[in-house]
Amino acid sequence: MFVNDCLNVNEKGHLTIGGCDTLDLAKEYGTPLYVLDENVIKETCRSYVNSFKKFYDGNGMPLYASKALSCKELCRIAKDENIGLDVVSGGEIYTALQAGFPMEKVHFHGNNKTADEIKFAIESKVGKFVVDNLYELELLDKIAGDMGKKVNISFRIKPGVDAHTHNFIRTGQIDSKFGFALETGEAFEAAKEALKLNNVTLNELHCHIGSQIFDIDPFVTAAEIMMDFIAKIQKELNVTISELNLGGGFGIMYTSKDEPVPYENYMEKVSVAVKAKSAEYGLPVPFIYIEPGRSIVGEAGITLYTVGGKKEIPNVRTYVSIDGGMTDNIRYALYQSDYTVLNAGKADKEANETVTIAGKCCESGDLIQEHTKIAEVEVGDTLAVLSTGAYNYSMASNYNRIPRPAMVMVKDGKSRVIIKRESYEDLVKNDI
Amino acid sequence: MFVNDCLNVNEKGHLTIGGCDTLDLAKEYGTPLYVLDENVIKETCRSYVNSFKKFYDGNGMPLYASKALSCKELCRIAKDENIGLDVVSGGEIYTALQAGFPMEKVHFHGNNKTADEIKFAIESKVGKFVVDNLYELELLDKIAGDMGKKVNISFRIKPGVDAHTHNFIRTGQIDSKFGFALETGEAFEAAKEALKLNNVTLNELHCHIGSQIFDIDPFVTAAEIMMDFIAKIQKELNVTISELNLGGGFGIMYTSKDEPVPYENYMEKVSVAVKAKSAEYGLPVPFIYIEPGRSIVGEAGITLYTVGGKKEIPNVRTYVSIDGGMTDNIRYALYQSDYTVLNAGKADKEANETVTIAGKCCESGDLIQEHTKIAEVEVGDTLAVLSTGAYNYSMASNYNRIPRPAMVMVKDGKSRVIIKRESYEDLVKNDI
Repeated sequence: MFVNDCLNVNEKGHLTIGGCDTLDLAKEYGTPLYVLDENVIKETCRSYVNSFKKFYDGNGMPLYASKALSCKELCRIAKDENIGLDVVSGGEIYTALQAGFPMEKVHFHGNNKTADEIKFAIESKVGKFVVDNLYELELLDKIAGDMGKKVNISFRIKPGVDAHTHNFIRTGQIDSKFGFALETGEAFEAAKEALKLNNVTLNELHCHIGSQIFDIDPFVTAAEIMMDFIAKIQKELNVTISELNLGGGFGIMYTSKDEPVPYENYMEKVSVAVKAKSAEYGLPVPFIYIEPGRSIVGEAGITLYTVGGKKEIPNVRTYVSIDGGMTDNIRYALYQSDYTVLNAGKADKEANETVTIAGKCCESGDLIQEHTKIAEVEVGDTLAVLSTGAYNYSMASNYNRIPRPAMVMVKDGKSRVIIKRESYEDLVKNDI
Repeated sequence: MFVNDCLNVNEKGHLTIGGCDTLDLAKEYGTPLYVLDENVIKETCRSYVNSFKKFYDGNGMPLYASKALSCKELCRIAKDENIGLDVVSGGEIYTALQAGFPMEKVHFHGNNKTADEIKFAIESKVGKFVVDNLYELELLDKIAGDMGKKVNISFRIKPGVDAHTHNFIRTGQIDSKFGFALETGEAFEAAKEALKLNNVTLNELHCHIGSQIFDIDPFVTAAEIMMDFIAKIQKELNVTISELNLGGGFGIMYTSKDEPVPYENYMEKVSVAVKAKSAEYGLPVPFIYIEPGRSIVGEAGITLYTVGGKKEIPNVRTYVSIDGGMTDNIRYALYQSDYTVLNAGKADKEANETVTIAGKCCESGDLIQEHTKIAEVEVGDTLAVLSTGAYNYSMASNYNRIPRPAMVMVKDGKSRVIIKRESYEDLVKNDI
């Protein structure tokens, strides 16, 4: 019935998450409201960790991709679950620091790290710099040298595999702002360049092949290509790359059309390929990182809204206006993303009405979903949009000077605020 | 050469705005940096005010559409220029209050005003409620009654004119989340309903026909349709609608392809049509509001960035990475909007290189402009994206936990911060 298993229906016919009645949550904390299920997040972390134990002798570690949802509490959970963090900015590093995260398990990504961010990352003892380009390599070496430090680096490689959703392309994907191309020799030249520098140690390679992927084969292909390159570096440069980062992109369920692969299956197949390549080349089996973000928090989250208006336009469509919109979830406006929307107070009723869910922004394109089926909606109803844990809060804006919603963590029937609702004072705090 | 006249080139070949060298601004305040030219903003306000004086006996007032850029300083400018404000949320009302704006000149829009926002607006003595639907009408009447107040209202009407950019549709546009449809009789029924209520006074009608419009005819057509409806209400309900709000949508120049109409031309033509209709029906000439937002701040603003990387991909394209991106300007990702990009330190040089400007977000779609011509770019250069005064800061996010840039106001060679740059502390301030 629902897209994920943290949701249920209680005896009142209300949608529940983590054992909490969503109508009670809406009443207690107000709407719009982001809600996250702690057990689902932790279980997903564990399923990734266990997949390394089960199929790869524990010789790897998931890094939570903070950009899906960066906040202090998520950093704390990553710490408790013994996984690392993939961060992409000084702000995400700062968040990890504030949460007391072990910084040696933080990997710093990004196609344009500024000098200030690099300095801050070195000061913060970030464990790995995933270098995107030669300018960054030189800048990093220089700053590290000036600070009297030596840093571990990885290279972001374009492996020539581009996987999105249901298909993947074996070559191409050279057209990306990220990383060093393999097929042009650019990546190899960069490895040679790194060897000349005194303040960086290249011991890892990284690739990332796409988002919302529902197929394991492209990951296996990418892993094999990366192992071939590791062998080439070993042979031609006599440098041992002991760590391999295969990135993220594990698909989740937004609607019943999506069919995610059980997350442990990735490592099951990838490990076979990596071990085979290691044996083929006589190389040590590399430590493997993967970077799940969306798959850790996406399905664990829902957003609750209150309906403020309903507009039936004969022979056209019915608009249902909610008290949030593109400010808290821009993904439909940006990517026309599919979502499952439920009438939270009628979760046991048939979805017999077709409506368009419109936000409250003063913009025609502020829609959350068009022509979606839902149990008959009335003004005052609470709606739940499912699978909003990733890339909703993280992309939220104050467009129309609308404050960003609070976020509540639920677990075993209890709830607590993990991000406070923005106040009007917050909105003007930097206005002079 | 440039899309607007606040820009110039100094003897060093650097781009200037409001008499300030953009490279000096970048150095003093850091990048990314929003810059606004105060004179341009004020002159545009005055051109609208003057168009009422010149063509309509001063019998009207522009309302600045805050959603284009809401901050305390813009409210102060609107106050100084004796124009009103169009606000769409409690947050925009709060901003106006904080700036000491005369609240009787504030008109409150939106398709889903919450009960809390309505209460706050009444407490704040907002001058006009632009009612979107019957639920809101009833809610507003009830809340006003409970507070012992009577409020002035307008109705947002769908006039059946849909104008976007270079073409407009005479009918249709009934498919909108906003307002009451005219052609179905819905608007007339709403007017009858309003007469039954004790705590609201209907004395205005409002319409808004689109965005980035480069043609005056659709405004004239909409004005005529609205006057016909005002006459019908007078005749059949014996109610005098003394004010007419024709909304905004006045097109600005993003690139040389755009050809904006001089702003005073709108009132020149609209006033003729409205006066003719008033005479035809024997009605008093209505007070007219218009709602320019983008046209007041859009061309007055630029964004400055520093180039951190350049990636030439043979036979594909050249990526230039800047230190901002979709977090401070989401319009290309959202609408594929055209922008003019200049190499600020080579403003006197020919735009002889074709590049794609990529942001620093960890997202492939984080681009500011693709395949755009620019004077040859090197790492460290300052780039200026023009016409970013509207819908850039207002739609900005903290995606990737990137702090929002500062905004600087320039005038006659001097500069001052009007919005402070966000700090890392700001980013986590609501995290628990």
